[in-house]
Amino acid sequence: MPATEFRLIELLRGAGADRADVRTGIGDDAAVLDLPAGARLVSSVDALVAGVHFPDDCAAQDLGWRALAVNLSDFAAMGAEPRWATLVLSLPTADENWTRDFVAGLSHIARAHEVALVGGDTVRGPLAVSLQLMGVEAPEGSLLRSGARAGDDVWVSGSLGDAAAGLALIQGELQAPQASVTVLQDRFLRPEPRVGLGRALAGVATAALDISDGLVIDAGRLARASGRGLQIDMGRVPLSAALRAAVDHDRALNFAVAGGDDYELLFTAERARRARIESLAAARNMSCTRIGSVVDGQTVTCVLESEPWIPSHTGFDHFGRGAGR
Amino acid sequence: MPATEFRLIELLRGAGADRADVRTGIGDDAAVLDLPAGARLVSSVDALVAGVHFPDDCAAQDLGWRALAVNLSDFAAMGAEPRWATLVLSLPTADENWTRDFVAGLSHIARAHEVALVGGDTVRGPLAVSLQLMGVEAPEGSLLRSGARAGDDVWVSGSLGDAAAGLALIQGELQAPQASVTVLQDRFLRPEPRVGLGRALAGVATAALDISDGLVIDAGRLARASGRGLQIDMGRVPLSAALRAAVDHDRALNFAVAGGDDYELLFTAERARRARIESLAAARNMSCTRIGSVVDGQTVTCVLESEPWIPSHTGFDHFGRGAGR
Repeated sequence: MPATEFRLIELLRGAGADRADVRTGIGDDAAVLDLPAGARLVSSVDALVAGVHFPDDCAAQDLGWRALAVNLSDFAAMGAEPRWATLVLSLPTADENWTRDFVAGLSHIARAHEVALVGGDTVRGPLAVSLQLMGVEAPEGSLLRSGARAGDDVWVSGSLGDAAAGLALIQGELQAPQASVTVLQDRFLRPEPRVGLGRALAGVATAALDISDGLVIDAGRLARASGRGLQIDMGRVPLSAALRAAVDHDRALNFAVAGGDDYELLFTAERARRARIESLAAARNMSCTRIGSVVDGQTVTCVLESEPWIPSHTGFDHFGRGAGR
Repeated sequence: MPATEFRLIELLRGAGADRADVRTGIGDDAAVLDLPAGARLVSSVDALVAGVHFPDDCAAQDLGWRALAVNLSDFAAMGAEPRWATLVLSLPTADENWTRDFVAGLSHIARAHEVALVGGDTVRGPLAVSLQLMGVEAPEGSLLRSGARAGDDVWVSGSLGDAAAGLALIQGELQAPQASVTVLQDRFLRPEPRVGLGRALAGVATAALDISDGLVIDAGRLARASGRGLQIDMGRVPLSAALRAAVDHDRALNFAVAGGDDYELLFTAERARRARIESLAAARNMSCTRIGSVVDGQTVTCVLESEPWIPSHTGFDHFGRGAGR
């Protein structure tokens, strides 16, 4: 059903949570928003392009979910509180039904995290979504990538590799038992950003980022920003039961290091924080696993049973490899 | 010259002004920004797609300028102070030279308006730019679209139609004397957003928006938001000497009403503010012209020498007409 840009904006106007701190939302030249006294503003932006960041035939609801989820994951990695989003939607045709489904998926996760949609733009073009999230820094300050110190533990939330395996299943590149299929595909289609955990880690972890391009690439970013090395024990990398039931251990590890779509947190913390972190995770009915340690040096080293472990794929560079994704 | 996403982000890192209120800029999961105590946040976003919002062969420097200019114009229309921008750049190939030129054009206008680039994303796709601008509300409050009252004057800044004529010249649809060509093309390629005027109008004007889609469409938006009608005297619409030298009066008026790329401000104010507004404009070495008045009713009426005037084109809907733009 073709619609005008005006009609699409009307559909977007109803998306997300209602927030009392939105003074002017969609419909004027800009949004006007109240910040709490003394709070710092936090802002992140991520773009998703069909055929690059998600399959061309991705359901509109799943894409709406994902567009916000990937930015919520950035906020989780900063320990920040999300509040407001703006959206740029590029559509090949002005499809009202598609947009309604997209808004439904976006609103679902937006309301769960109390995020209001306060502005946007719709343009005609290949299917792509760009979402910017704004919010407030944790009172304890931000979790930067640069704070890791030698001797810190390296932690990861949840389990790794599920989403990459889920994508392989969706693309017909993998077969698995039905129980695993459902779990793994859902991990790809509906990532659950670790916002609550991230906020709890502010003031506890020394550095953090979210794993969006794969464990090895993202660990390298944290190492570089901190001017330290990371040693990762592949035998400790958390793998879900669903993934272990679907593929052998080597392939599971490769999904775990190369697939970033799990949107788990990679973070470092002093050893003295171990009990605290385990109780923070348990309180959220999830796990955090120590997978290594911060060392002097510059590089990320993966070991498995005391031998160097070399992944067959390291992850995703949007302009380099991975064109098929 | 192909480059990695990482290298492109490095190029963007140097763009824009340095600002002391940027606590964390490009390079972490999100930006962290200091707001002055008690200030409200203002945010706008605009997307530009090649072949829709700018010609496919637009120079990279001009596109960098435009991406920020259109958002600065939204800030002008709110009376707000711009501070920080984030950018999503979609490029068919990771072209380092193109990106360097783009950054040069963006930085030129960003430094003039003291805007820092604090975040971004680069993706592979058709040429498109999406820029979000953030900043601070005027102490006098925001210039909304909804504040026009019956009896107010309707004003417009600068002159209208130049950019539309400039685009027609660039596209070979119009011939004109060389002196006009230079002026008109420059008005299209390097729009000068009225940020200083907009900030001065906060607390003075009753309503405002920037003319981005054409006088008639944008006047209709202000009328609708205010629940009032607008009567526009086409004989008073300001036309530049360059435009008058290039086309006859009727065509000039059609460029003026249908071309939004001038990024001038349309605003309303009480009659008692006339002298104040003229002196605000003069202090900025520019003009503001009264082109009509706010009336009871719902519609925008254009008259010329007391007769109804019907434009042959009314403006631009990105999903409707205007496909050739």
